[in-house]
Parts: sequence; C-alpha cells; structure tokens
Amino acid sequence: MVYTPLPDEVLKELLQPNHTKIVLLVLDGLGGMPMGPVGPTELEYAHTVNLDTLAADGTLGMHIPLAPGVAPGSGPAHLALFGYDPFKYNIGRGALAAAGVGLDLQPGDVVARGNFATLDDQGRVVDRRAGRISTEEAAPLVERLAEIQLPDVQVDVRPVKDYRFVIRLRGEGLSYHLKDTDPQRVGIPPFPVEPLEDSPEARRTAELLNRWIQEARRVLADHPRANGVLLRGFATDPQLPSFNERYGLRAAAIAEYPMYRGVARLVGMDVLDLEDTTPEGLFRTAARYWREYNFFFIHFKETDSRGEDGDFFAKARAIEKVDRALPILMDLKPDVVVVTGDHSTPAKWRSHSWHPVPLLLWAPASARTDDQYRFGETACTHGGLGIIPAVHIMPLALAHAGRLKKYGA
Amino acid sequence: MVYTPLPDEVLKELLQPNHTKIVLLVLDGLGGMPMGPVGPTELEYAHTVNLDTLAADGTLGMHIPLAPGVAPGSGPAHLALFGYDPFKYNIGRGALAAAGVGLDLQPGDVVARGNFATLDDQGRVVDRRAGRISTEEAAPLVERLAEIQLPDVQVDVRPVKDYRFVIRLRGEGLSYHLKDTDPQRVGIPPFPVEPLEDSPEARRTAELLNRWIQEARRVLADHPRANGVLLRGFATDPQLPSFNERYGLRAAAIAEYPMYRGVARLVGMDVLDLEDTTPEGLFRTAARYWREYNFFFIHFKETDSRGEDGDFFAKARAIEKVDRALPILMDLKPDVVVVTGDHSTPAKWRSHSWHPVPLLLWAPASARTDDQYRFGETACTHGGLGIIPAVHIMPLALAHAGRLKKYGA
Repeated sequence: MVYTPLPDEVLKELLQPNHTKIVLLVLDGLGGMPMGPVGPTELEYAHTVNLDTLAADGTLGMHIPLAPGVAPGSGPAHLALFGYDPFKYNIGRGALAAAGVGLDLQPGDVVARGNFATLDDQGRVVDRRAGRISTEEAAPLVERLAEIQLPDVQVDVRPVKDYRFVIRLRGEGLSYHLKDTDPQRVGIPPFPVEPLEDSPEARRTAELLNRWIQEARRVLADHPRANGVLLRGFATDPQLPSFNERYGLRAAAIAEYPMYRGVARLVGMDVLDLEDTTPEGLFRTAARYWREYNFFFIHFKETDSRGEDGDFFAKARAIEKVDRALPILMDLKPDVVVVTGDHSTPAKWRSHSWHPVPLLLWAPASARTDDQYRFGETACTHGGLGIIPAVHIMPLALAHAGRLKKYGA
Repeated sequence: MVYTPLPDEVLKELLQPNHTKIVLLVLDGLGGMPMGPVGPTELEYAHTVNLDTLAADGTLGMHIPLAPGVAPGSGPAHLALFGYDPFKYNIGRGALAAAGVGLDLQPGDVVARGNFATLDDQGRVVDRRAGRISTEEAAPLVERLAEIQLPDVQVDVRPVKDYRFVIRLRGEGLSYHLKDTDPQRVGIPPFPVEPLEDSPEARRTAELLNRWIQEARRVLADHPRANGVLLRGFATDPQLPSFNERYGLRAAAIAEYPMYRGVARLVGMDVLDLEDTTPEGLFRTAARYWREYNFFFIHFKETDSRGEDGDFFAKARAIEKVDRALPILMDLKPDVVVVTGDHSTPAKWRSHSWHPVPLLLWAPASARTDDQYRFGETACTHGGLGIIPAVHIMPLALAHAGRLKKYGA
C-alpha cells in the first residue's frame, strides 16, 4: 500500500445519496512525452478546444497511477482509478480475460487464457498463435473444446478474439497456483501444467488440466493450424469489493475492449452494449443509458494503441477525435467530469510508462478553478489539484458531486 | 490512515531542544473560492500587506486537511494540523465540548452535550433550544441539574453558552455507546437514552442517564421554557497522546471558542486566558505569555463564521483584521510562523469544504523562499512547499525551528 485509499468505513460514514451524475472519461495511455528533447507532448500538440474549455473552467492536476516509477498494466491502473489499492487486489490475467467475455467468477474457480497453437508431429510449438486464425475460424474449434468433460468439475470455454479463448474450471478443491504451459517460444513442446505450490489442490488441478489439454489435442487433431492449445495466466476470482457499494453509486461501463469491460465487471459495474466504438458512439451510449446510472466509466482505447505504435501524430489525432465528440457528452449536463488516462503511453516509448498522467476535474458547482486553461502535461503540473495518487480521484469526484458529508464534529 | 504522520519513535529520536519559538496561526476556514466562475478568493481579494510580506520572505504551499475530497469537521481538522492521524483518533462531540469548558476527561468517563429544551404538557419537544435562553438565565438551571445525584457514579454538569451544557458521568462500568435523545425535530418527545451496543455497561449507563433526565425534568418543571433537556454526542476521553511529549514543546493555546480550546486541551496544551478576542487581543495574549512557552497555537474564528454566513466581503475583512494586527505578533520575534486554516469555508459554499488550504511558512533562518509573494490560493498552489497533507506541517515547523536532527548516519 504505497498510497492508502480512503478506508471503506470512513466512506460508508460520509456517503450521502443525491441525483448527481459523475463521468470518468479514461483516454487509455493519455500521458505522453515530447518526441525530441523538448517540445509538446501528444496531448499538448493536439487541438482540443473542448477539453481546453473544461480545463479553463475546471481544475487540473496530475495523478500517479500506482507509485512513482512503477509503470502499470491496465488492470492495476484501472483499479487505482476506481479507488482500489492496486497492490492489495491482484487481478490475474485469466480473471481479467474471463470477466471481459462475461464469464462470471466465483471464489474457488480457476480460469486461464488460452491460445490455439500449431504443433508439429513431434508435439513442438510451430506457431504460438495458430497463424492468427480469425474469430470465425476459431468458433467451431471452441465448440469442440467446450465438449470436453472432466470428472467432478464443470468446464467452460469461451472464445475471446481471433486465436484466443478462456477456460474456467468450477468445483471443489481447485487451485490456480499453476505454471503457464505457453513456452513463449517455438521449437519446443508446450510445458505441462505444473503446480506452483505443494498442495493437493494444485496437484489435482494440474492433473485435470493436463488431461483436458490431451483431450483438446485429440479433438483438434485434424485442424491444419489450430491443432494444439497453450494456457497461461491461471487465476481465480479476485474478490474485489463492489464499486457500487463502496461509493453508493449505480455505475455503468462503456468500453469496447474486453480487458476494460472485464475489470469494470469485476468491480460490479454494468457493462453496456455500445452504439459503436467511436468516441461519438461511446458518448451516445452514455446518452442512451443516462437516466439509469449515476456513474459512467467511459473508456477510449485508441490513444494507448497509437502510443504503443509509436505514432505521435496518430495519438494526437485520437485525442482530437475524443475532443470533437465531447459536446455529445457535455450536452447530457453531467455534474462532475473527470478526464484522465489510466497511465502514460508516450509514443516515443511505444509502451506504458510510470510518468504522471494529466488529470482534469470539471465540476461547475464546486471546482476551485486554477490559473491553467489548457489540458496538457505542463499545465496539469501547475494545476490546483496538485500531483496526487490515482486512488484519491474517486473521493474527489464524489465530493465535487456533493456525495460526501463532512467528517467529524 | 490516508496520510501517515511521522511516527512517534522517529520524532523522539530526532527531537533536539533549543530556545526557538514557533507560532501556528490558524485562521479558521481560511481557504475560499471565487464567488463567480472565475475571480479572486476571499484571501486573494483581501488586502494583506503584512501577510504578503511573510509570503514573500517565506514559502507557500497548500495543505490537504484529511484526504482529498473529505471536508473536515473542526476536531479532525485541528488534530491533523497538530500532526495526529485524524482517522485514528476520533474525538466525540461530547468530549470536545467537555474539554472546551475545562471539564477534564479520564478513560471510562462518559460525556455528552446537553441542550435545555421546551417540552409541552405531553412531553413533546416544542423548542429544541428553549428559546435560546441566555447564559445568565441558564446558569441557575445548570446549578439545579448539578444537584442531581446518581447511585455509584459521580455526575458533573457545566454550562457552555446560552442554552448549552455538558454532562459528565464518572465511575466504574460505564459506556458511551449510547443513542442521542435529541430527536432533531419538534412535535415528538425526546428519545430515551438507548444502548448502541449490547453490553451491560451500555445498558447500565442508559438506565442511569434516563433516571437523570427524569430528575432533570422534575427540577426544571417550573421553568416556562427550559423545562426539559436533550443529550447528544455521547463520548469518552479520546486518549490523545500528549502534544508536548510528542514534539518536545511547551505549548499554549490562544483561542476564544470552546471547541478549539477543547481540542487544544485534549492534546495537553495550556489554554490561556485571553486579553480580548480581537486579533490584537490574541496576539497580545501571546506577548504576555511569550517567555513561558515555545509553541503558540493561535486560533481566529471569524473567518470561518463569515464563510458560513456566505459573506465573501466580511470574510475578506476578517482576514484583513488579522493582517493589521500581525505586527504585534511579529514584534515578538518568533523563529517560525505558520499561517494557515484548518480547512476551507468558501463563502460561496457557506460550509466547510475539502479544498486544499493556503499554507504560509515563515522561518527566516531556514526557509527556502519560492517565487510567490502574495498569500492566496493560486500563489500557494505554485509555492515551494507543494500540496502536502496537514499532518506533515508540524515536523516542517519543528525542522525550521532547528528542533529536528538528521535522521540516520
């Protein structure tokens, strides 16, 4: 616990319901860097007249996603934005993937991410992604996998995208402390599932899964490319406390990508069907469900993807797309809007980084405006919110929405 | 513990005595907001030539009283300023009130705030404040209450102000886990005292207090307005560690209002008699006791009161009053002066808020000055101290007073 979130019992005492609506708009990987030694970041380079208006009328700051120097994965970064201690709650990748495709998780379940893979006649991995077969091509194969039975446990398999699937075991006496079978390279056979702890549960689960893998190879044997499977990211239900209970909200998630839909579902948000995946579509989805929820987590992925591509200008253009669509959101008259990223993905770096992330808080009823009027890294550094841990953003948003009482006499 | 104060054992190791004098000048509810969407805050609007001189020669910053988004009550806000974890130490309202009138507290005591009230002949509350009877009119009634005896416990009753009093039970086997009798509205009878926990102590204390209330109604029966009592805020000794021990100081409190005198007394400060309640009077009181103490907590209430009134200009004028009187304090040649508020009370909001609070540290021997020279929210946001938790102010003040050694080799 590098930064301690406001304790549950304090929040519980302070919460007061009202009819305000809060929007948390996450531009994934928003934070950036100049491409050269000096110059604007992607956000500073982008023309963002609507975001700048919010910045001028609101208050800016920076957030530190997990801890100084720690570049976050998407799971922990979003947990922190949602106000959960990211070092306390550890969402395994399998759990994220399962939740992302709507496979529910219970304590004791074991889930893993699966890939279809190409094996040669010696059983060695030739292609870890089975030639990146399409979702359509994978669908009947997933159905074949779903037929496989194991003694005393329920097995569910769900397609994800392309060559990816998710497997869930449900039953008594299972353990997720298991080693990945994906060797992460070609030319050698997949590893067997092996226990990572010396327990009967882990040994039994490894045995069951090895049997399942054997069966999988049998039912896939005739496929020219997808004739094997690789499993990794064994996990279980992370048992995250409910977002809605913690904050007294009815929260909806508007996100295209399974991972973000997954993390939202794991904290108990309703994950909405999208109008379409453009920023306009995301905001129109909010409009459609506006009356049913009082908290909207809206996730836009493209900023991160273009940052990972190393394309400074494409990332700036992705930011501009959101900016152009923003009036659709603002026309709904939210009470509090937080615009930020889950972490930085500087195009210069082509990967997630630990740099602080621009943070914009717009709340006309209660914002103490600062002297910054342009949404960008330098302006945010000088903003009135200061440089704060991500876990403190939610209480700030609640306070600005009038949803927190005074603490103590 | 959202922000962890410097641990006692570290402080203990670092403390070094000297002859320096530290002043913590608290302008209650100092932080403000522009009345319109933009514009100066109360502090920025006020003409404060003396404070601005300190600002120019010193270092500015902001403090977050309890946690981002959490508007503090006066008790927790002052505990945080004094360097105590406000979520760890919970001062009940009764304890604050008792300490405020100099009624000492011991572990096991049960205290509560009392109101005289008007009841009709059915025993229903007609006026929760007995027509706001004056302190003079209440005095003989408090004396009547003080006559009431209970078996095996010592009962003390003290007047507070106007229609308010404090009651303390002292004895073995008592509990303060009790429900308020004040129904918070008229037209219904007061609630009986009821236990909030299932313990013999709570049941016994409830019985004793219900008996006391019955007796109180008997001795007050002939008064036309104050013929009943309401009790609330049951509490006990919060057992706060000693301020003087923690910091190696001899601390004095200069405060007019009982609540602030109370919280100062609860941490073990000497609470001084005031010359008068103007800023001049507060500073002259410091002058009179200047040689006897090396830490002065000086509390000025009017800024908060005018903020609560919603009177932007009156709050600015209250700040100006302190500014005009400031030379009396500075003539004493303190070594370190901290000027801040316990929280924000923006006139626009008419209540306490969670917004960061302007902080001024003046310490000519050791301050690293910044490029800010005007005491106000925007300047403080850009100040050299940054935006820091309130619990870290005391160690900063001690360090600037030369009272903390280096930590480690």
